Amino acid sequence: MTEPGFSDIAAAAERLRGHAVRTPLLEAPLLNEQIGGRVLVKAENLQLTGSFKFRGAFNKISQLDAAARKRGIVAYSSGNHAQGVAAAARYLETPAVIVMPEDAPAVKLDNTRAWGAEVVTYPRHGADREMIALDIARDQARTVIPPYDDPHIIAGQGTVGLEITEQAGERGVSLDHIVICCGGGGLTAGAAIALAERLPGTAIHTAEPEGWDDTKRSLETGTRQRIEEVTPSLCDALLASTPGELTFAINNRLVTSGFAVSEEDVGRSMALAHRYLKIVLEPGGAAALAAVTSGKLDVAGKSVAVVASGGNVDHTVFCDMLSRFGT
Amino acid sequence: MTEPGFSDIAAAAERLRGHAVRTPLLEAPLLNEQIGGRVLVKAENLQLTGSFKFRGAFNKISQLDAAARKRGIVAYSSGNHAQGVAAAARYLETPAVIVMPEDAPAVKLDNTRAWGAEVVTYPRHGADREMIALDIARDQARTVIPPYDDPHIIAGQGTVGLEITEQAGERGVSLDHIVICCGGGGLTAGAAIALAERLPGTAIHTAEPEGWDDTKRSLETGTRQRIEEVTPSLCDALLASTPGELTFAINNRLVTSGFAVSEEDVGRSMALAHRYLKIVLEPGGAAALAAVTSGKLDVAGKSVAVVASGGNVDHTVFCDMLSRFGT
Repeated sequence: MTEPGFSDIAAAAERLRGHAVRTPLLEAPLLNEQIGGRVLVKAENLQLTGSFKFRGAFNKISQLDAAARKRGIVAYSSGNHAQGVAAAARYLETPAVIVMPEDAPAVKLDNTRAWGAEVVTYPRHGADREMIALDIARDQARTVIPPYDDPHIIAGQGTVGLEITEQAGERGVSLDHIVICCGGGGLTAGAAIALAERLPGTAIHTAEPEGWDDTKRSLETGTRQRIEEVTPSLCDALLASTPGELTFAINNRLVTSGFAVSEEDVGRSMALAHRYLKIVLEPGGAAALAAVTSGKLDVAGKSVAVVASGGNVDHTVFCDMLSRFGT
Repeated sequence: MTEPGFSDIAAAAERLRGHAVRTPLLEAPLLNEQIGGRVLVKAENLQLTGSFKFRGAFNKISQLDAAARKRGIVAYSSGNHAQGVAAAARYLETPAVIVMPEDAPAVKLDNTRAWGAEVVTYPRHGADREMIALDIARDQARTVIPPYDDPHIIAGQGTVGLEITEQAGERGVSLDHIVICCGGGGLTAGAAIALAERLPGTAIHTAEPEGWDDTKRSLETGTRQRIEEVTPSLCDALLASTPGELTFAINNRLVTSGFAVSEEDVGRSMALAHRYLKIVLEPGGAAALAAVTSGKLDVAGKSVAVVASGGNVDHTVFCDMLSRFGT
């Protein structure tokens, strides 16, 4: 696999024009005051399907030839990639099968089906979802749409970073930092390529849940580390056990440092997003904001962009987090 | 008082440029499918201070002369106008006193103080807030910033309607209907003036809570009706007991019909906004969407814009509504 370059992200942005939402870069002055810096929140929860994943899926599927689109696609996902692929497949008129853990949030399972995809479930910790998807791909001659370790997926997600550079520029803000929620690293890699090209002075950071900080550990050692122990986490969107090969090659070069955030950090950032930004973030989508609101990244006197990567959360989990960590 | 015209709204839009947020017009394809029509949600919960009220306040205060700004301003409000005025006053460097009911949502009281205003509270049903404000204005030579019955306030709120016409046009949508959350009628009047000028074929509707449907009743009779009975309602932003004089003169001419929505209608629309749009709406801010999602306005095969006018709700109330009416 070859690494995507900035031109691939610019081309993805053209493909996505009129299909993906140019999500707003939100800011709450009263939250800024609490933090002592300026926080710009890229609200990808407002993206079609409630997360950034539509971008990469659409960029990838739109480049399949007519014969491949007719045969169909298959993907595996904890839920956000599932919905992104299902929606992109529908707009691009290709039949989709999605392999999902049976305990994925109900909103993610329901919405994936509502977008018209066929959902195949599996027990989260008892089966290899990638193998299930590869079997389906082979048996039915479908194209696999991988969740992150793919140049077209990375380029599509990178449009988030490209838009942030444009929107910060429109606002006259010079970004000192950007923090990105990180699972397999596709969003981080794509955004990092865009930032490195357009705003080379901005420090790039990842945010992961405690116990699933494989990218942080890999950045610290310079080699891909694997999480062996399964820690319970509400950040279902970020539970990759090791960075992608392609994504880590990029991130190891471009990312400054990684943060691991606790459940309390995440819950507090969800509550702050509710209170000051009036948006719904899922736990995994609130990790980057949590790295800032918890003080793990000190932004006193600085400007920081955080990617709020998704908002697909059942209201029971959402409200449980707000009741525990809201003020 | 003279009625504002379209040129006053255009002038307000110029004054607000770079100060107010051009809030997004959100759309969720899966919600559209449920409803059978196309629903575009003007997300004024994402406006500075969490509601549209900043627009009118900024437009009004920015036109005060230097001496008046130095003496300061006073406003009375259940909470959204309070925050809008407090923020506008801070940016325009004039001291603000805000008269608020003591049982206003905590988030509204706290944020008004956080914007730097002095808050004076009163018992909601035991005192005349307008009289308290007028007394303060007289004693301290402050300018009153009224919540709705004022041409500059109406013109400022009208920029919401102007942006909707622009954003629907950018999206190539021809709007059959628009529904607007209605308290005293300032937002409705301003938006109606903009719509009547730019999209004269669009039917304009108001949405009010059951028991507080004074505008609906007034539209039906052609004269200003007054609510005599105090019905408990979570839509604290919409509890005006009679339409404004100026606002009703405009709305009586331009508005097609009014809807009254129940607490269940509102709770269901808050839950749908959480699930499909990933935004936080306060009960009063969800009333217009509720008129559509409850089927009170049939939009089968039609396109409708709804104004989501605010998102300032304590998480306890928000989560109570979601647990009762979410699915």
